[in-house]
Amino acid sequence: MKKVMNNPENVVNEMVEGFIATFGNGYKKVLNSNGVIVKNKPDRVAIITGGGSGHEPLFIGMVGEGLADGAAIGNVFSAPTPDTIIEVTKELDSGHGVLYVYGNYSGDVLNFDMAAEMLDFENIKTKTVLVNDDVASAAKENAKDRRGIAGDIFAIKIAGAAANDNLSLEQVAAITQKAVDNIRSIGVALSPSSIPSTGKYTFELAEDEIEFGMGIHGEPGIQKTKLLSADELTQIMVDYILKDIELEKGDEVCILVNGLGSTTLMELFIVSRKLTNILEDKGIIIYDADVNSYCTTLEMAGVSITVMKLDEELKKYYDKPAYSPYYFKKGR
Amino acid sequence: MKKVMNNPENVVNEMVEGFIATFGNGYKKVLNSNGVIVKNKPDRVAIITGGGSGHEPLFIGMVGEGLADGAAIGNVFSAPTPDTIIEVTKELDSGHGVLYVYGNYSGDVLNFDMAAEMLDFENIKTKTVLVNDDVASAAKENAKDRRGIAGDIFAIKIAGAAANDNLSLEQVAAITQKAVDNIRSIGVALSPSSIPSTGKYTFELAEDEIEFGMGIHGEPGIQKTKLLSADELTQIMVDYILKDIELEKGDEVCILVNGLGSTTLMELFIVSRKLTNILEDKGIIIYDADVNSYCTTLEMAGVSITVMKLDEELKKYYDKPAYSPYYFKKGR
Repeated sequence: MKKVMNNPENVVNEMVEGFIATFGNGYKKVLNSNGVIVKNKPDRVAIITGGGSGHEPLFIGMVGEGLADGAAIGNVFSAPTPDTIIEVTKELDSGHGVLYVYGNYSGDVLNFDMAAEMLDFENIKTKTVLVNDDVASAAKENAKDRRGIAGDIFAIKIAGAAANDNLSLEQVAAITQKAVDNIRSIGVALSPSSIPSTGKYTFELAEDEIEFGMGIHGEPGIQKTKLLSADELTQIMVDYILKDIELEKGDEVCILVNGLGSTTLMELFIVSRKLTNILEDKGIIIYDADVNSYCTTLEMAGVSITVMKLDEELKKYYDKPAYSPYYFKKGR
Repeated sequence: MKKVMNNPENVVNEMVEGFIATFGNGYKKVLNSNGVIVKNKPDRVAIITGGGSGHEPLFIGMVGEGLADGAAIGNVFSAPTPDTIIEVTKELDSGHGVLYVYGNYSGDVLNFDMAAEMLDFENIKTKTVLVNDDVASAAKENAKDRRGIAGDIFAIKIAGAAANDNLSLEQVAAITQKAVDNIRSIGVALSPSSIPSTGKYTFELAEDEIEFGMGIHGEPGIQKTKLLSADELTQIMVDYILKDIELEKGDEVCILVNGLGSTTLMELFIVSRKLTNILEDKGIIIYDADVNSYCTTLEMAGVSITVMKLDEELKKYYDKPAYSPYYFKKGR
C-alpha cells in the first residue's frame, strides 16, 4: 500500500503540524503534545474530544465553533496519553469545568479517566460522556459496552451547542448523554486499511465479501456476506438500527451516511437515497441529513449509517450554527 | 474492486436522486436531466458548471450560495449532454445571462458550445470561462490546451462571488478569467480508480511507482518515478508550479491540497505541511489554505496542489461567504 508520508513514525506529528500550518488562524497546537485547540479559550464549559489518529477528520476536524474546543489525539489507532489529555484540558478550562466526549474504547477510557483523576487534584472539574452508538458491537442489554463510531459527530455537535448556551457542566453532560442515548449506528466494510508504520492490513476480506458491524479499527463484525447491492446492504443496516431503537411514524431524526475512507461520495449518495426512502416509507421525518466521510478508518472502504432521534431540546441544539474546516451547519 | 452500487448503469441517476433526497431543502433536480440547481433562481448572472461524474463533490457539490447556481453532469467521465446543459441554463437564466465555468476537456467544450449556440437562438446569452490549471497537461506556450483539475474550485468560488455582486455577464466572465489566469495545479497519482460500469482500472502503476501530472481520468502524466517521500513529491509539484507562474516575495496566494479519492486527510496534511513551508521560506504569503478532497477521480489515490495568485480584486471575491454541503467559507 503506497502512502504519501515521510517517516512512518512521524505521521501524526506531521499531520498536526500540517493542520496548524493550514488552519492556524483559528487553531493552535498544545505545546509538546498532540493536542489541537481553538485559539480563543471560551469562558464557559469546554468540550474536549479525542482518541486515536487514523479517523480524520475526526477528531481534530471537529474542533471549532459550536463544536469541540479541543482534541487530544494519540498515534494511529492508539489512545491519547494522559499527559496530552491533561495539557489540552488545562489549556481550555476556564473554571467552568470540561466535558470529555469520545468513543467508548478501553484505552481511551483508561487514559481520559486517569487524566480526570489527576486534574481533580488541581481542582479542575471534568465529566465524561462516552459515545457508544455502534449497535453491532454488543447486544442491547450490554449497550454500555458498545463502541463509538460516527455517532461522535452528532454527540460533539450537541455538546458544543449546549456548552455555547452557557449551561453548567452537569447540564451540558446531561444533554449530551441524552443525545448519545438517541444515537444508533452500524457500518459495513468492503476492504481493509493498512497501518502506516507497518504497512499491514487491519483485516482480510475475500474479493466478493463484505462484513457488517466491523469496527473502525478492524474489530470483528457480526455478519459476513457476499457482496450485496447498495439497496440490499442499506436495508440490512437500517434493520439492525430499527431493531435497536423505537422509531414511529412522525418521529423526527437526523441521519448521517458516513464513508469509512476510500468509498466515494457517489456510493454514499446511493446509500443515502435508499436510506431516506426506507425512513420516509415508514413515516419517519428526516429533520436533517448529511453525507460525508467524517469518521474514517484510514483508507478502508465501506459505509456507516447513523440515526439520531430528536426531541425539542436536541433539535434546539442541533439547529445552532457550527463551524470547523470539516463540519459546518448554518443554523436555523 | 467492490463498490456500493445497484445497477452500474444507474450510478449517476441514483447519485443525483440521493443528493436531492439528502439536501433537497436547498436544491432541485432538473426534470429529465442530470442537472442540479439551487431552488431559488437568482435575479442576476447565473453560474453553471459541469462535466463528467466521478469527480464528486465536484460538480454538484459546488452548487450553492456564492458558488455555482447549477451543475450539468454526464455519466462517469463523460460530458453532460447538450440537452442537460440547455435545460439547466433555461432553469437559471433570469435575462442577465449565464456564465459557464468548467474544465477544459474536448467533450465538455463541444457540448457546452453546442448548447450555447442553440440557446443563442432563444436569446439566452451565455459566456464561457474554461479552467485550464493543470500545468502538466501542455507546455506553457500551449496553455490554452491544458486540462482543468482542482482549479475549478477556486474558479467557481470567484465566479459565484462576482455574480452575487450583480455585475454584468461580461464583468463576471472577465473576473473569472483573471482568476483562471492566476491558477496553477499539478497532481501525482499513486493508484488508479476503476470505472463502475466495467470494473476496469483507468491505468496501471507498479506497486512502487507514482506518476506526476496524471489527469483526473487517467490521462498520461509527465514523470514516472519510484515512490518518494511526501516532502520530496511535494517539492517536485511545487517546482512544476513555480516554473510556470511568477511568484515573488510578498505575493499573496490561496492554496489547496486536494485528495484524488482514497488518499487520507492525514496524508494531505503532511503535503500541506511541506507546501506551506516551501512557500513561506520563499516569502510568499499564504492568504488562505484548504485541504480536502474536492476534485476526485473515483477512488484513485493521489494528491494535487493548486495555487491561485491573488490581487485586490480576487481577494475581495475570494473573501465573500460561500456555502454548499461540501464547500464553505465564512467570509471575512
